Amino acid sequence: MKIPPVKGTRDFYPPDMAIRNFIVDGWKKVSMRNGFEEYDGPIFEYLKMYQIKSGDEIVEQLFSLTDRGGRELALRPEITPTLARMVNQQINALPKPIKWFSVPRLLRAERPQKGRLREFFQWNIDIIGEDNPRADAEVIFTTIDYLRKVGLTPQDIKIKISSRKLLAAALRAFGIDADDLESLYVLLDKKPKMPPNKFEVLLKDKVGDKKIVNKILDFMAVDDVLDIPKINNFLEDDSEELNEVFVSLDQMKVEDYCVFDASIVRGLAYYTGVVFEVHDVAGELRAIGGGGRYDNLLRDFGGPAISATGMGMGDCVLEILLREKGLLEEKLPATKLDYFVACAANLSTHYDMNLVSKIRQKGFSAAFSYKTDVVRKYEEGDLSKQLKEAAALNARNCIIVGYDKPLVLTKLIIRDMATGDQERVDEDDFLSRLDNE
Amino acid sequence: MKIPPVKGTRDFYPPDMAIRNFIVDGWKKVSMRNGFEEYDGPIFEYLKMYQIKSGDEIVEQLFSLTDRGGRELALRPEITPTLARMVNQQINALPKPIKWFSVPRLLRAERPQKGRLREFFQWNIDIIGEDNPRADAEVIFTTIDYLRKVGLTPQDIKIKISSRKLLAAALRAFGIDADDLESLYVLLDKKPKMPPNKFEVLLKDKVGDKKIVNKILDFMAVDDVLDIPKINNFLEDDSEELNEVFVSLDQMKVEDYCVFDASIVRGLAYYTGVVFEVHDVAGELRAIGGGGRYDNLLRDFGGPAISATGMGMGDCVLEILLREKGLLEEKLPATKLDYFVACAANLSTHYDMNLVSKIRQKGFSAAFSYKTDVVRKYEEGDLSKQLKEAAALNARNCIIVGYDKPLVLTKLIIRDMATGDQERVDEDDFLSRLDNE
Repeated sequence: MKIPPVKGTRDFYPPDMAIRNFIVDGWKKVSMRNGFEEYDGPIFEYLKMYQIKSGDEIVEQLFSLTDRGGRELALRPEITPTLARMVNQQINALPKPIKWFSVPRLLRAERPQKGRLREFFQWNIDIIGEDNPRADAEVIFTTIDYLRKVGLTPQDIKIKISSRKLLAAALRAFGIDADDLESLYVLLDKKPKMPPNKFEVLLKDKVGDKKIVNKILDFMAVDDVLDIPKINNFLEDDSEELNEVFVSLDQMKVEDYCVFDASIVRGLAYYTGVVFEVHDVAGELRAIGGGGRYDNLLRDFGGPAISATGMGMGDCVLEILLREKGLLEEKLPATKLDYFVACAANLSTHYDMNLVSKIRQKGFSAAFSYKTDVVRKYEEGDLSKQLKEAAALNARNCIIVGYDKPLVLTKLIIRDMATGDQERVDEDDFLSRLDNE
Repeated sequence: MKIPPVKGTRDFYPPDMAIRNFIVDGWKKVSMRNGFEEYDGPIFEYLKMYQIKSGDEIVEQLFSLTDRGGRELALRPEITPTLARMVNQQINALPKPIKWFSVPRLLRAERPQKGRLREFFQWNIDIIGEDNPRADAEVIFTTIDYLRKVGLTPQDIKIKISSRKLLAAALRAFGIDADDLESLYVLLDKKPKMPPNKFEVLLKDKVGDKKIVNKILDFMAVDDVLDIPKINNFLEDDSEELNEVFVSLDQMKVEDYCVFDASIVRGLAYYTGVVFEVHDVAGELRAIGGGGRYDNLLRDFGGPAISATGMGMGDCVLEILLREKGLLEEKLPATKLDYFVACAANLSTHYDMNLVSKIRQKGFSAAFSYKTDVVRKYEEGDLSKQLKEAAALNARNCIIVGYDKPLVLTKLIIRDMATGDQERVDEDDFLSRLDNE
């Protein structure tokens, strides 16, 4: 009976798993060196957890299930609600600021397409309990620290940064009612995905007044945060926070990656301050990642009003970009077996297994042939077949063992598989050499 | 709105995550040094995947869901069906033997209790395409290689090894019909979980003949594979394979962990040859892991008849045992921040962020205070508060920066937080020192 995999999911064969590990291990390593601690939650939560703040798109794409106890559950489409629940549960015990990261497996019932799958992995970093703009800068720096580490340059990617708070102040200053802000954000967020004239028509329909439309368009075209007061000098105070973020990023020497872009809004309903997205410079892919400040989320999940800022980055678009730039080939570590132990003669005492077990215990990878035993399939001392096995396993070295005369072991022959160089060495000397490597 | 976590799942706060990472990273490392490559599949498969061979208990405990396309899916309760599907899909392209491992997140709707949760992680290793008993020995050795590495001794755990093939031959030799074997296995598997006299009564009910009952009891009491021919000398051939496994384990110097135990049967329907379980010597916990040879599984999933052998070990019982033996405290690496950068004076140029970014890029973990900026909450040069922050973050070193006179930076003061020792060093010297660490 042959059953296919489920649409929109991936099978990770060892070469695919090596790529996933390369991406995920990099996320973990960079998170830790930036002072974040790892957490994780369950693969599912109560369905209603995602109906609070996740936004309509995510709610429509939930994989939901009912367990035998009649509980309505959903597979996690994002980890932020779990984060809010976990922090709220221990809010008094946890020292602030909380700097946490996670690399959850997430599920969304989307239509599978380039860079979007139903099952994916997402890097999340969050700083909770700190309203200082330096925390926003820290989140953005950590994002860049990873992208730079895997070889992406300012010629490949840009972090487009703006602020919901600034945008709200600007729109209010232009004459938009406070009640109309949320629905206007939804439209502004779609600007990059449509032709400019179509956007203008829709904006005109929404706003009505042509003068306001032009002010909004002028504002969205600003590409330096210091130019904002030129649009409206009342906005100087509102842009100070964002300015502090840019000054910090400058000091952290990642300014080449960062641009102010007033058209960045972010779709999710919960952002309240600085927002940003990571885009490929060529503009051919979806956003690689994004995030921002969300000051009300913990309260919405039954906790206190505590400020927070964070970032999420999926593995799918990132992998496409790394592949396009040739960085997977360049950076992916080669998987090599350290030692393959071959038998030059019939070693009925299983000397190969014995040596392999000692090498492994010293932390090196080692293998032997399954075909050289009492039920042997290789002829006695058929070294060439074993050397082929060693080569197929991508072994760095092959160790050849055998008897000189009955029951007297020779020295080990250690063969460098790349150069073909061989040396003879006593087993004890070889093993103590491993201790020093 | 406060929503609880779902019953039977775990929240991994950073200290819990450190334990999970300790366990999982060890599994990965040991798998690799034993020559296994990592794979993974989706969190769900078509429901019918698990109705083929997973056994009644697992099928009853499935978390099932129907997606928007009407597909009947189930969250994976084990990864072996996924492994069979993946191998079958690429059976001709994959070099044999296939040596793969995985550490899947699994879901079972069990009644949560000590060592059993609805969501857990399981180490799986499998060798496919090799019927040599040395492959079974390799799987058992790899299992022990991990358990030994985390500090468990033969005084703590034992691997109880038997063979379904030998058991079948013995039962047939004693006069049991071939058709009755499967149902008899189910009863024999429950032997350790009931008082001896209750087991005898049930066995009598099942088998009928008192003489056969006694032969079965004698066979199940054998504790050395070499003693099997004493029970019935026709069994000598049938025990040769198992004997070869023990000889191999002896050569790999893990014989102290291994015992023959004819009462090991394994619940799952798909085992066909060598079977084994890992138990705590005190006998207080459920099995820590188990596995064996399954020669028909790939065929049952629409592939060719290829021999395979493997092992599974969950994280829950293992963690209980490691905790009881004090090994978590002993082995868990301390999470320490390498450097905390503190400001001795008002550094309006964000010098602390600048230094931190350089330290991180060299691969070391570093942090600074969010409270020492333009919107500062600390008084200028309030070092004691920053040193407290450094201590709270468990920093190894604190670097103190400041001006000697306006705009002239002093040397860095590097303070060892454990000893209190301090030294003064130029930034360049400090940074180049990091390159050599």
